[in-house]
Amino acid sequence: MPALLQAARTRFPALFADFLARQNGLDQRLIDAAAYAMQNGGKRVRPALAWGACLAVGGRQEDADGAAIAVECIHGYSLVHDDLPCMDDDDLRRGQPTCHRRFDEATALLAGDALQSLAFISLAGGALPAAVRATQTARLAAAAFDMVVGQRLDLSAEGRQLALEPLEAVHRHKTGALIRAAVALGALAGGADTARLAALDRYADRIGLAFQVHDDVLDVIGDTTVLGKRAGADQDLEKSTYPALLGLEAAQQLARNLTDEALAALEPLGADADPLRELARFLLARDH
Amino acid sequence: MPALLQAARTRFPALFADFLARQNGLDQRLIDAAAYAMQNGGKRVRPALAWGACLAVGGRQEDADGAAIAVECIHGYSLVHDDLPCMDDDDLRRGQPTCHRRFDEATALLAGDALQSLAFISLAGGALPAAVRATQTARLAAAAFDMVVGQRLDLSAEGRQLALEPLEAVHRHKTGALIRAAVALGALAGGADTARLAALDRYADRIGLAFQVHDDVLDVIGDTTVLGKRAGADQDLEKSTYPALLGLEAAQQLARNLTDEALAALEPLGADADPLRELARFLLARDH
Repeated sequence: MPALLQAARTRFPALFADFLARQNGLDQRLIDAAAYAMQNGGKRVRPALAWGACLAVGGRQEDADGAAIAVECIHGYSLVHDDLPCMDDDDLRRGQPTCHRRFDEATALLAGDALQSLAFISLAGGALPAAVRATQTARLAAAAFDMVVGQRLDLSAEGRQLALEPLEAVHRHKTGALIRAAVALGALAGGADTARLAALDRYADRIGLAFQVHDDVLDVIGDTTVLGKRAGADQDLEKSTYPALLGLEAAQQLARNLTDEALAALEPLGADADPLRELARFLLARDH
Repeated sequence: MPALLQAARTRFPALFADFLARQNGLDQRLIDAAAYAMQNGGKRVRPALAWGACLAVGGRQEDADGAAIAVECIHGYSLVHDDLPCMDDDDLRRGQPTCHRRFDEATALLAGDALQSLAFISLAGGALPAAVRATQTARLAAAAFDMVVGQRLDLSAEGRQLALEPLEAVHRHKTGALIRAAVALGALAGGADTARLAALDRYADRIGLAFQVHDDVLDVIGDTTVLGKRAGADQDLEKSTYPALLGLEAAQQLARNLTDEALAALEPLGADADPLRELARFLLARDH
C-alpha cells in the first residue's frame, strides 16, 4: 500500500474522532451512527488525496486536516443516504450492515444530514486564511451538489446501457467531483498557485475516471471474496460499465491511459508529488 | 404585515428561482422538488431576518441576498427531511402535500440533500469579503448541525412532558439556532461590529423563543382553518408545550416578555432597526 494511503488510514480515525468529540449536543446513538458511517472500513482515498495534494505543493500535512475531514464527511454522508431504502436499499456496505440496518432509518438519515453539516464546520474553522477557507467551501459545496446530480443521472440510467459520454457524465458527477474537490481543498490548504491547482485538478480528474473504469473491470475479473461484493453484480443489474461498452481489454487500456495522463499532469510538480504518483499507480493495480 | 416580511415574500421567490437556475445539471424533477420545497407557502421569516439585520447595521439589502437564500435553503431542507416517512411521516405541510407525497421519497431525500449543499454554495459565492463569507459559513454550518441535535432532542422527548429547561433546549436547537444564524449572517453581510452582532444575537435568541411559545399558544387558542393544521394537534400528541407547562396565561405573558427583551436588545441600534422591531411585534400578534 502507498505510504500516503497507509498514513491516511492511520491518521484519519483519531483525527475524525477528535473532531466529532468537539461537536456538542448530539445524542450517543447519533454519534455512534456518524462514527459508524465514517469508520466502516473506508479506504481513505479522499483524505489521502487532500493530504497528498497539500504536500505536493509544499504545504504541511496538518494544514489539510480540515479538508481531509470535510471530504470524507461528504463521502460518508453520501454513502449513508445512497444506501437508504428509498434509494439503493442496500443491506451491506463493505461487507458490514449499512448504517440504517445497524441503527435505524431515521438515525441514518440524520447522521447523513449531520455529516454534511460537519463537512462545512470542518472547513469553516481552523487557522487557514479566510480566503482559502471561502474558496474551499465553494469547491466542496459545488462537489456535494454535483454528487446529487450524479446520483440522479445514475438512477435515471438504470436498466439501460449508456453511451460513453453519458456514462462519463455520471461518474464525473457522482464520484469524480468529490475526488477533484479533495485534491483542490488540499492544494488550497497548501497554498497552491493557479498553475499548480490546474495541474492537480487534471490529475484528480484522470484518477477519478481511472478509478471508476478499474472498478468496472474488477467487477468482471475480480474475486467475490476480495471485492466484498459479488463479482458480476453490475452486469446482473444491467448497469452501464466500461467493459460492457468497450470490451474488457480496451477498458483496461483506458484505465492505464487515464493513469498515464494523471502522472503526466504531475510533471511540473517535482518530487513533492511522489506520494500522489504512488497513489495513482496503486489505484490502478488494486484488486478491490 | 410588516414591510420587511412583505418585501421578503415579494423578493425571495424570484431571487431563489434565479439562484436555482444558475446551478447546472439537476434533472427537472429534482429542480421542481427543490422549488416546491422552497415555495410551499413559506412565511419567509428567516430571509426577512437576514435582510432586516443587514439593514439594521447600515448595510445594503442586496448584500444579504446570499444569506437570505442560504438560511431559507437550510430551513427548506430541514422541513423536507423532517416530513419523510422515517421521521414525522407527514402528508401535509402548510395545507399542501409534503415533498415526498407530491413527488416521491427518493426525490425528497435528494432535494433536501441538495438544498443543504445549495445553502453553502449561496454563501460561498458572492462579492462579500472572504472573511465575512468564512464566518457566515461557520455560523450556518453550526446552526445546521444544531438543528439535527434539536431534532433528536425532540424525538427523544416524544410521549413525555419535558420540564421548562429541556423544552427550551429543544427549541433553541431545532428552530432557534437557524433564526439566530439568519440574523447573524445578515448582520455580518452588513458589516456589523462585535457589539452590534451581540445585540442582534440577543434579539434573535428572544424572538426565536417567543415565536415558539406563541406557536404553542396558538395551538391551544387558534382556529384550525387559519392555522392550516388542526388546533390541539400538539396536545393530542402529548407534546411538551409552554401552555401545558406554565398554563395558558403565563405562556402568553412569557411570549410578551421575550418580545420585550428582543426589543430592548435593539435599543443601541437606532431607527435602522425599526423593520426588525416591527417584525418582532408582528410575530407575537400573528394568528397563524
